Amino acid sequence: MQITLNSPLDMHLHLRDKEMLKTVAPLSAHTFAAAIIMPNLVPPVTTLHEVLAYKKRILEAVGDEVFEPLMTLFFKDSYDYAFLEEAKPYISGIKLYPAGITTNSEGGVSAIESAALSMTLTAMSDLEIPLLIHGESDGFVMDREKEFIPVYEELARQFPNLKIIMEHITTKESVAALERHENLYATITLHHLLITLDEVAGGMLQPHLFCKPIAKRPEDREALLSVALSAHPKVMFGSDSAPHPQHAKESCGCAAGVFTAPVALPLLAQLFDAHGKLDNLQTFVSDNAQIIYGYTPPVKEVTLEKKPFTVPEKYGEVVPMYAGEEIKWSIRSVK
Amino acid sequence: MQITLNSPLDMHLHLRDKEMLKTVAPLSAHTFAAAIIMPNLVPPVTTLHEVLAYKKRILEAVGDEVFEPLMTLFFKDSYDYAFLEEAKPYISGIKLYPAGITTNSEGGVSAIESAALSMTLTAMSDLEIPLLIHGESDGFVMDREKEFIPVYEELARQFPNLKIIMEHITTKESVAALERHENLYATITLHHLLITLDEVAGGMLQPHLFCKPIAKRPEDREALLSVALSAHPKVMFGSDSAPHPQHAKESCGCAAGVFTAPVALPLLAQLFDAHGKLDNLQTFVSDNAQIIYGYTPPVKEVTLEKKPFTVPEKYGEVVPMYAGEEIKWSIRSVK
Repeated sequence: MQITLNSPLDMHLHLRDKEMLKTVAPLSAHTFAAAIIMPNLVPPVTTLHEVLAYKKRILEAVGDEVFEPLMTLFFKDSYDYAFLEEAKPYISGIKLYPAGITTNSEGGVSAIESAALSMTLTAMSDLEIPLLIHGESDGFVMDREKEFIPVYEELARQFPNLKIIMEHITTKESVAALERHENLYATITLHHLLITLDEVAGGMLQPHLFCKPIAKRPEDREALLSVALSAHPKVMFGSDSAPHPQHAKESCGCAAGVFTAPVALPLLAQLFDAHGKLDNLQTFVSDNAQIIYGYTPPVKEVTLEKKPFTVPEKYGEVVPMYAGEEIKWSIRSVK
Repeated sequence: MQITLNSPLDMHLHLRDKEMLKTVAPLSAHTFAAAIIMPNLVPPVTTLHEVLAYKKRILEAVGDEVFEPLMTLFFKDSYDYAFLEEAKPYISGIKLYPAGITTNSEGGVSAIESAALSMTLTAMSDLEIPLLIHGESDGFVMDREKEFIPVYEELARQFPNLKIIMEHITTKESVAALERHENLYATITLHHLLITLDEVAGGMLQPHLFCKPIAKRPEDREALLSVALSAHPKVMFGSDSAPHPQHAKESCGCAAGVFTAPVALPLLAQLFDAHGKLDNLQTFVSDNAQIIYGYTPPVKEVTLEKKPFTVPEKYGEVVPMYAGEEIKWSIRSVK
């Protein structure tokens, strides 16, 4: 059995910088036509100069692969209309982190309601720049996303023309919120379609499956699967693939993030195939995103086949999801 | 400020065997007068010969400290009246693990209702041997204890004269179940009074706080605190202190267990003091257990004082809870 995907897109990707960038960028670029690049470097990407410089470093790391890095800025409420107008041709969205919630997001916005915030969001709305949000409160770890939903909804109401992407949603409550507001969209990761907290902490503790938002309950995973497998028009694939060196994962105080980029497409094919929904994969992994972002990606044909593939133990110093395990689908060719 | 505790008891303790036993047994024996010793060695303790041999090894490891190891058998439904009658003088209880749930419990009982099980429990009831249960289902990790409560309740109803100890309870539902059945009792650990899942996985992942049952929600911790701090007569302190070598905790596939034995009493004093309940500590950490088990421990006076103490980074190869951190209470003297 085979499937050919046209221009697969990863609408939420961490490529990091320096040596790590050189390790992971070619892996994404090999099978994806484009990806939304997260701006949470240290320090975060907040100027046009940094956007362009980072894009250049990514393209250098990518080499000859056909791959378009879709750049983002790290949200600051000091961004004004003039700046955003200048930036618009070079960015695909702006990523907002509630302060301190996730990796390298210590500079994020803490007071979600303020005049400055409103000014920036109004400008983004007018300029049609999507707002990408890591939506978690600072509450109890299993409740953080659910508690953030009123913020999503208030933003959706206040800025009806602003496209708001609920990034890496993990709960049934977020799935339900998608239906209530025309301008709410969502990315869904591979790992949140595959695991619950059981896989992270139900047996031995599995640091390589520890991520933020943390994997939730079985009924949450079911809700995510239902919209992903049916290629609901408001959801798109975003891996949130987040590389950390092995020593940072297997230690006392393990960093959050699952590294899935190099195995994402075979595993998505395996998942959609197992549910008899392979026909919807193209929509989930590319078409929806093209419509939501109004984006036409470079041409790239990725053919996957149902043929066993053993996931490498490591890519550089990074341990991927299912390291060393055999999965059922593999990449046959990329054109 | 000081408090003197008379014969502190740890009613749920893992001492392991061999070199680990030699490392950890003296630490518990230094400040506790006695402890219920878990039988989940590899292979588990299931014969009288093994009970006596393990007790001998513990006492050798303990050396000159005044300390009584209260031995337990690993539950098997092949134990009959004659065996249990012979064993009774040498054991304080029998520990039942639903199969496969916790560390080294692969030999546990899976079908909770069977004729053989009933025979063994009837004999235990007649002989007044307490039943100690690790009560978790094989369901979703956050629901396992709650899902097991009907089993506790059915056992409590079927065997009204059997003392059933719900070991290391972690949920408000277990606290509530205590009130519904005269013959249900519970141990509570130190770490479940201090942490929720937030401390394990809300920031960086903390393998040294990963345990089974996993730490639950804030409202669960509140329920545990309410009965512990008030020294509710049906609850007693059981550390579930469970040493693993550092490499087994800080790795891919981290073993479950928090090592608290050497710091348990100072941390309990700090906790009870912070809530203005220091007067109840003696009851929680000794008197309730003496009444529930009908046990008179050896005389030991442990004086704690409110004086900062820095927890060692390691005891042998084992990293304790709060390693390297300063806590507010310390051990002044042991007589």
